[in-house]
Order: sequence, then C-alpha cells, then structure tokens
Amino acid sequence: MRMVDLIEKKRDGMELSSNEISFVVDGYTKGEIPDYQMSAFTMAVFFSGMTKQEQADFTMAMVQSGDTIDLSGIEGVKVDKHSTGGVGDTTTLVLAPLVASVGVPVAKMSGRGLGHTGGTIDKLESVSGFHVEITNDDFIRLVNQNKVAVIGQSGNLTPADKKLYALRDVTATVNSIPLIASSIMSKKIAAGADAIVLDVKTGAGAFMKDLNDAKELAKTMVDIGNNVGRNTMAIISDMSQPLGFAIGNALEVKEAIDTLKGEGPADLQELCLVLGSQMVLLGKKANSIEEARSLLEESIKNGKALESFKTFLSSQGGDASVVDSPEKLPKAKYQFEFEAESDGYVSEIIADSIGTAAMLLGAGRATKESTIDLAVGLVLRKKMGDKVSKGDSLVTIHSNFEDVAEIKKKLSESISISSNPVKPPTLIIDKIS
Amino acid sequence: MRMVDLIEKKRDGMELSSNEISFVVDGYTKGEIPDYQMSAFTMAVFFSGMTKQEQADFTMAMVQSGDTIDLSGIEGVKVDKHSTGGVGDTTTLVLAPLVASVGVPVAKMSGRGLGHTGGTIDKLESVSGFHVEITNDDFIRLVNQNKVAVIGQSGNLTPADKKLYALRDVTATVNSIPLIASSIMSKKIAAGADAIVLDVKTGAGAFMKDLNDAKELAKTMVDIGNNVGRNTMAIISDMSQPLGFAIGNALEVKEAIDTLKGEGPADLQELCLVLGSQMVLLGKKANSIEEARSLLEESIKNGKALESFKTFLSSQGGDASVVDSPEKLPKAKYQFEFEAESDGYVSEIIADSIGTAAMLLGAGRATKESTIDLAVGLVLRKKMGDKVSKGDSLVTIHSNFEDVAEIKKKLSESISISSNPVKPPTLIIDKIS
Repeated sequence: MRMVDLIEKKRDGMELSSNEISFVVDGYTKGEIPDYQMSAFTMAVFFSGMTKQEQADFTMAMVQSGDTIDLSGIEGVKVDKHSTGGVGDTTTLVLAPLVASVGVPVAKMSGRGLGHTGGTIDKLESVSGFHVEITNDDFIRLVNQNKVAVIGQSGNLTPADKKLYALRDVTATVNSIPLIASSIMSKKIAAGADAIVLDVKTGAGAFMKDLNDAKELAKTMVDIGNNVGRNTMAIISDMSQPLGFAIGNALEVKEAIDTLKGEGPADLQELCLVLGSQMVLLGKKANSIEEARSLLEESIKNGKALESFKTFLSSQGGDASVVDSPEKLPKAKYQFEFEAESDGYVSEIIADSIGTAAMLLGAGRATKESTIDLAVGLVLRKKMGDKVSKGDSLVTIHSNFEDVAEIKKKLSESISISSNPVKPPTLIIDKIS
Repeated sequence: MRMVDLIEKKRDGMELSSNEISFVVDGYTKGEIPDYQMSAFTMAVFFSGMTKQEQADFTMAMVQSGDTIDLSGIEGVKVDKHSTGGVGDTTTLVLAPLVASVGVPVAKMSGRGLGHTGGTIDKLESVSGFHVEITNDDFIRLVNQNKVAVIGQSGNLTPADKKLYALRDVTATVNSIPLIASSIMSKKIAAGADAIVLDVKTGAGAFMKDLNDAKELAKTMVDIGNNVGRNTMAIISDMSQPLGFAIGNALEVKEAIDTLKGEGPADLQELCLVLGSQMVLLGKKANSIEEARSLLEESIKNGKALESFKTFLSSQGGDASVVDSPEKLPKAKYQFEFEAESDGYVSEIIADSIGTAAMLLGAGRATKESTIDLAVGLVLRKKMGDKVSKGDSLVTIHSNFEDVAEIKKKLSESISISSNPVKPPTLIIDKIS
C-alpha cells in the first residue's frame, strides 16, 4: 500500500477501506508517513469529505493509536458530555454533580487548555485544596462511591489526533467537519465513555457560527458514536451571546452553586436540565426524557444536587464550605460597572469579543505558559432582549488592576443597544439523535 | 504574511496577489515554507484552480527562482517548441534543422530525461562524434552562424519547479492543469524563448488522454505565455498511436533524415510542417501560415533542410556523412518481425504499451542510472486503419538480444486487428492561440 495512491483515491472522491484508513493513521502516528503527505490527504478530505464508514474507521484508528481508559470498574453506564466550546459555559460544573445526584456515574477526565477562561480543572481549583492528582484506583473508587470524580489528563491518549491537529492548524485544514468530528469523538471514546451527550454551539460566539454547519457537525458526531457502539445524541444550542452571566473561573463556580440551588441564570439552568435529562436517559436512570427531567428538578429542589457538589469537592481535598459561603472563593481587588450609554434594548452581546475582554483581565490562557488569575472576570447584568436605561450597569468587571479602560473599550465594541424591542435568541435550537 | 492564511485563501477559492504568489514560491525554494504547507497548498490548487493572473505570476515566480538563459546575443525571434510527450516523437530532430533552414534561430537547451526512448541529446549522440558540451559563447555563435545549435542543460534553472515537482509526485498533485502548465512554461521561459509553439498530445498514448483536458492545458499554457509577453500558440495533435514509424534513438535519427528528404512517414511529416509553419510565423520569417508552409516545403524539396541538418551535426563534432549513409548509425545485432495473426484492419496500436516494449529492448531509461542502447527499438510497419493479411509484418524489432518472446508478448497486447475497416485517427485536432 502506498500513501500517494490513498491520497489520490481520497482526492478523487472514492471510499477508503478500514485497512487503508488504519494504514494512514498508524503510519502517520509512527512517523512512517511524512507530514507533507498527511497534509495533502487532509486537504483532499476537506474537499472530498468522508463517508460514514470512513469517519467511524478514522475515529477508531485514532482511538487505537494510543492508550485508552478502562472504566469497566465503574458500575452503570458511563455517560460523558462534550461541548464544542463557547464563552461562559458553566454547564460541566453544574452537570457533573447534578446527574451524579440521581445516580448517573460521572467519571470525568479533564484538561486545562487555552481559551477565554480556564478549563474545568482550573475553575474547580478556585476551591481551596481541591486537586485532581489522584490515582486511577482512587478515581474509580470515588466514582463508585460518590458517582462523580474528576481526574487530570494522564496517559498517551489519541497521539494520532494530537499530531494531526498540530498539522491541520498550520495547513488550513482545521475547518473540515469529518476531521473535527473524528477528533472530538476519538478523545471521548479513548477516555472510556459508554454514551455521549454532545452540546454543539452555534452563533457568533461559537466555533460553528453557521447553524447548518453546526447541524452537520452534530449529525456527523452522532453517526460516528452510534456506528462504533457508543449511544450518542446532540443538542444544538445558542451561543450568539455568552451562556449565563459569569465569565471567569471563581465567578463561574459561584454561578454553578447558584444554579445547583435553582437560583442560577435561566438560560444556564435550562441548558443544564436539557443536557442533564439526556445524560440521565442514556445512563438508563429514567425511562423517558420527562421522567429524567423531573428527577433532576427534584434533586435541585430537595438539595441533593448541592449536597452532591459538596461531597465531590471534599472527596478531592476541596473546602466544601464554599458552597454555603461563596465569599470564601478568590475575590478580585476591584469591581467596576460598565454602564449603558443610552436607553433601549440589548440587541447584541458578541460572545467572542466578551471572552477576549475576560482574557485581557487574566481569566484565560493565551499560550500554554500563561498564568490564570482565578478571581477575575466579567458578570453580565443584562442579556439580549433586556430593556435598559442610560446609566444601568450592563457588566460588572472583576479586576486585579485599576485601569480597565481597555476592557471597557472592548465591552463597548461587544454590546449594542437598539431603540426597538429585541427578541432574545432561542436557546435550545435542535436535538439530533 | 503567513503561509497558513494563503493556503486558506486558495482553499476558499480566492485569488492570490502577485506578492502573495512570490511569497509562496520564494519561501518554498529557500526552505522557509515547509513541504507540509506546500503540499496542502498544491492540493488546494488541485481543487480550487488558479486564475489567469495567478498562473502567470506563479510561472514567473518559478522562472525567477533560479538562473535564466540570456539569448539576447542571438539575432531574430528565438522560437522554442515544446511537446507534452508521446511515443516515437521525432519532431524535434526534424524541426530544428527544418525551421533553421528558412532563417528561424533555434537555440535549443535539451536534457536526457526518463522515458521510452532517450531525450533529444541521446538521440543525436547516435551520430558519431556529436556532443553538446559546448560553451555558452560557442552556443550563441553557432546559432548566429547556422541558425541551429543544441546545448545540454546547464545552470540552476527553475529550482522551484524541480523541488515542487518532486513534492507533487508523492502527494497526488501532479494532475493539476495550472501546476502542469506553469511547470512547462517556466522551463521554456527560463531557457530564453521569445515565442513558444506547443504541441499538446491527446489520446491513449498521451499524458492528457482526454481531449477536453488537453484543450484546457493548451489554453492555460497559451494564456500564461501571452500574459508574460511570450507569443505562444498550441496545436492539439493525436497520440492514440505512436507518431511516425520509429521508436528508438538511432532509428529515429534515420527517420528524421528521411523526413527532411520528404520521404518520411506521412503523419510525422505533416505534424512537422504544421508545427514548423507556426514557428516560422512566430519567428517573423513569413507573413502568413500559407507562406510559412510553402517555405518549409520548398526547403525540403531543394535539399536546404537536409543541408541544414548536416551543418548542424558537423558544427557540434558529429559525422555528417550519416545523413547520406544512414547505415553508419548504430545498428542492432538482430532483427525480428512481429507478424499479424489474422486478416483485417489495424484498429489499435496502444502507444504507451509500444513504448514500454521499446524500453524493454533498452531504448529508454527507467531510472536516471539506466544506460541507453542507441541501436535498438521498434519500427512500425503498419498504422491504424491499414489493411493487413495474416503473416504480414506489423513491427520490426531491432534487438541486441536473441530472445524477444517478452517483447512480442507486449506487442501482441498493444496491437489489435479488427475484421471491419477502421478509420485512422485525425492527426491535427485543434489549434489554440
């Protein structure tokens, strides 16, 4: 088998066999196929696409390129959730203890990553003492005991995907739906998920700005999951404005606590209930989506969800008293209000741009070496469609430096006010299974 | 400027500026742009194509990547001819002395190359004493004096093209018309041509098997030439069967001598007159194509064309007496006849496959290290459409080994005989200018 022939085959729109896909992925991982052939191949995929079978084969070849996590020691159906990323997305912090509280095991492997705010682990480290450096055995034991635990990324998971992503990044082949889908799904599958709930974001603040692209990505990932024996479904949700109010690490932990009490922002609460219900259903802890939702609503109402969060934090060394006394979380030195310059209705809150403002405050990492300031960030006071009067605060800025002129400039570019009433965007756009 | 952005731009079908094209070609030649970005770029070109301006810019950037030949010391319009390659193509050997005999300067740089037979230089070396190791000054002097000379490839011409071709060869991006066209045109322009006549072959034995592809390639090259100030036109000619009768080095020199006397194969003679007339017209030695053709026909008739060949050979050390005594050319030890197995009409002579048979005899190079046997080759006795009887010779095999069973097997796979009359293919298919 010669790589040049397989590039030509893909270029000409023909389907590669499972053996041929394995040859490509294995050869590339081992360095037997050079970067210059792989980049021509990925560009051919960009134009010619991949069939469902090719996508499934490509995903599994990446899974098999490295270590896989064995979660068989955990009782029940291990359901993982993945979001395609957005701004102020606090869902994981809420969902993990929430679905655990109704008996769905959440065995989460998480990273730090780059972005507007930190990753799930960074956010949780706002809680004094909390740590993810636990052994695999402890991880399994904790999930069986409390139904929820988080561990840092360990082992050599999907090295093919890591190597390929770095190549795609410099050869303009990131933006290919089969490659995005197989990259995401390979990581979830290697991390041991039995079933997967996907939250595919769309709108100005999302990676997939166009709704049709978002639907195609969701459909592709759902097909891959189901083709390789992982029960998978996807929700398409709006990311034209940030989700919830808080964008920042400790600020999002506070918001998660509020939401677990039933006192969080309406959109965050709704999305968590929608995604959570799907997780409960796939985790076989309910027989219908309605029953699943009732279980979660009940768990919030009777305090079990909040209790689950406390147990989770303390089981990994965290000071669970922050749940009842959120003032113990890291706090920024200064708070400033960013005010409306006119009367009207909030017509636009560009999520991307708001995220950049949070990163400028120090809430996220621009490079792997950046240090995160867990205390800082933004809290939205208004969301799209809200009526405002001149001088109302639109955003509270939590900063550790006094001169926030640049931040305010960024915010004024991000938020628009219209004199006509504005309809807020629909949060839950579609469901694909 | 970042290469990744330029790949994306091309991927998305946008036009690159002259500066951007230079950045790509220069950066790649200097090794500042890695192979893996260039292969993604060429695959994007495969799918997105190039505009006329991009093709012209890309060609000139490749010309400027290395040395260029200065032919300004030669009087008159230097017209070069390029053929996209075929089997038994003896046109260069005929055309060089033929158009020189009517005053068009032919300053030819030629190579050895790989293929079914040798390159023009190999063929000419069948003439005892002939050599191309001459200085640039002698080369210019000889062209001014005799209107024709051939020099071996020297200098570092179009290094960008060499490096890029090697990459395209292993990344399934050879078959892209803008890349093929710019590769060919860059070499002709770097070699100093003022005007260019292209012979684009089509049919089973050609690189461009499909007529529409051949037309598109011809049109693309003509546009490039004219856009960069080189008067360029193209003839589309048939290569479903080999051109002329001879496929072999000395055998083709003999056939060229016959043709210069007006006694060559009809198809070779006609193609030489068609291409030659265009060269004479572009070389401004005639005011119309009819006048150009008359000049060439007259030159053949009155012996000036043959005289021009003799002068050319002896001026570069060759024994010109072979022109009158072709038996002095290298001769193979054995001759065998390959005979028709049935009565009928020749319906197919697969040029590619006949070429392979010649190479198996030793007439061509499979790798750079192969040694060529100048004496061996094939001479067709029949061409498509000819009526044959069982036992008639179809091909004479000139071999230096006795066992030609393999050669005959190849020939029997290459030539078909039909019981119904067959119309011979049209030789001159189109003219593009």
